[in-house]
Amino acid sequence: MHPLVEKVLQGEVRATARLLRQIDDRVGSWREALAQLYPHTGRAEVLGITGNPGAGKSTLTDQLVASYRKDGRRVAVLAVDPTSPFSGGAILGDRIRMQRHALDPGVFIRSLATRGQLGGLSRSTADSVAVLDAFGAEVILVETVGVGQDELDIAKLAHSTVVVMAPGLGDDVQAVKAGLLEVADVFVVNKADRDGADATVRDLEMMIGLGHELLHSGAHSLGHAAGTLDLAREAHRTLAESEWLVPVVKTVASRGEGVPALREALAKHREHLAGTDRGAARRAQSARENLRVVFQALLLERATTCLGEHLERAAEAILARREDPYTAATELLERFLASPRAP
Amino acid sequence: MHPLVEKVLQGEVRATARLLRQIDDRVGSWREALAQLYPHTGRAEVLGITGNPGAGKSTLTDQLVASYRKDGRRVAVLAVDPTSPFSGGAILGDRIRMQRHALDPGVFIRSLATRGQLGGLSRSTADSVAVLDAFGAEVILVETVGVGQDELDIAKLAHSTVVVMAPGLGDDVQAVKAGLLEVADVFVVNKADRDGADATVRDLEMMIGLGHELLHSGAHSLGHAAGTLDLAREAHRTLAESEWLVPVVKTVASRGEGVPALREALAKHREHLAGTDRGAARRAQSARENLRVVFQALLLERATTCLGEHLERAAEAILARREDPYTAATELLERFLASPRAP
Repeated sequence: MHPLVEKVLQGEVRATARLLRQIDDRVGSWREALAQLYPHTGRAEVLGITGNPGAGKSTLTDQLVASYRKDGRRVAVLAVDPTSPFSGGAILGDRIRMQRHALDPGVFIRSLATRGQLGGLSRSTADSVAVLDAFGAEVILVETVGVGQDELDIAKLAHSTVVVMAPGLGDDVQAVKAGLLEVADVFVVNKADRDGADATVRDLEMMIGLGHELLHSGAHSLGHAAGTLDLAREAHRTLAESEWLVPVVKTVASRGEGVPALREALAKHREHLAGTDRGAARRAQSARENLRVVFQALLLERATTCLGEHLERAAEAILARREDPYTAATELLERFLASPRAP
Repeated sequence: MHPLVEKVLQGEVRATARLLRQIDDRVGSWREALAQLYPHTGRAEVLGITGNPGAGKSTLTDQLVASYRKDGRRVAVLAVDPTSPFSGGAILGDRIRMQRHALDPGVFIRSLATRGQLGGLSRSTADSVAVLDAFGAEVILVETVGVGQDELDIAKLAHSTVVVMAPGLGDDVQAVKAGLLEVADVFVVNKADRDGADATVRDLEMMIGLGHELLHSGAHSLGHAAGTLDLAREAHRTLAESEWLVPVVKTVASRGEGVPALREALAKHREHLAGTDRGAARRAQSARENLRVVFQALLLERATTCLGEHLERAAEAILARREDPYTAATELLERFLASPRAP
């Protein structure tokens, strides 16, 4: 067995941190370690916290950590958001605020700043979630910025995803259209003591209801849909409990307000998943996503190593307009597939 | 020759729109069309406009379009930002504002909303830029949300990238840390009539100067760097012209204020690129990026088709914890590479 694996399974913090670094740097027998840990995963509750910068995701994450700790649950935070104080990317005041968990052995904080390689962030997140799960974290909070494709992909790894908004950020209804509606299991309108909070809640409920309405009526025309806005809001209140109707929770995270209501909404979503096919579907999606990011990374790695300088030569041909990107890429693909299968 | 190619090269708008759709839907002989168009590309100036939602990117893009049109230049807008009114993703007021260019034959607007497949957005952007370039657009404005990895990748396709911020959005200094500093050729502080605009400009100039300072001193410790903040601001003013010092331009896009200054900054950047090795490096980077996104898409497509149901079976094994993702992915990779080379 990998020397660190046993210690991780016993819940040792330092060994876990070391293994996570080894996996990120791909040193030592990190793959064996992951393989050995994997049978011990699948117990943690993985929660995604996402939303635009400035919505207050980190403050809310901080409050959730405190709330789970009060219940004695072991918590891990994975900060994928480059603007998060957890990841060291925010202004000084925020970072100091985070320190309160730094000395709590029941809280494991890790930031993932990897950028630059395709899908690298999703893969690091998937690997880290597996290690923290095997380590014994009961709740894993994954904080991401909710705009890019990578970040939406990361949401697919979570069992429940919280989308955080704030009134007056210019991101309320617009952000819903930015693909966030499809990943949100719970909406939070944070900074709910600000002007416009109720309007934001109303807009969101309308959008959610409208989403359901569209889903059920099969209507795809927006012109048609516009007439059903009132119906849609009504639908949000009355839709049968058999389906998950994304709730909208108001919080003032800086004062801890609304956090119990958020915990309750998350517990309800967990129950909903446990009691329906959608729970199994969600777990299957998470497994598929995990496979996808790892497979793509391995495949691209192999192709890049195998092709070596041919990649640069093809780029030069494109630059000189001697070749177009598709022709060049097709040639590279054939070359890769025809090459000897060296590792 | 592909029936639409000749018309695109003659600058026919309808044929161009049709070809772009065919390429996106991958119908007909779209690859031949791209290959035939490619030798006629490389003339357009490609500008990236990026920044967080709510910063006013679209209003600024709209004003830039108007400004280039005044000079009689043919302009294309590619809206990759899902919150942009150009892409149909914003509130009604914004969309109406955009209409003013809708009837101008010298302005070509296209939105790219493709989501869901990895790298799909970067590839669609690269393809569309090539078509619009061959079509005769002299300036191509690519509007993206500047947070995700895909969106940062798209910035690599542009010759100059404008990063737009607004005071009071909670995104000023934080956003700089989010990887935007590395892609910014020009910073715009929009909504400059708001409180805090001067502070945002000052912070940005300090960050930019600090970036240079760090680059030159080789100092990587932030503790060390903190002592050089004043020096850094000074550096921003005095650094030799031989290097590009990212300028910070104030605008009030809703009133068109600052747009001439932005045009000037962009013209200077273009001159800078033309006169130095960095221009060649930038064009080479754009070619490499174009090749990368196309190659990855073709490779993943081929692997997915080839593996078929094996992918789903592997995901099931992961879900049941019979196998870990790396072992499963490695087996899939070997299977793919050992399979007959059917197209």
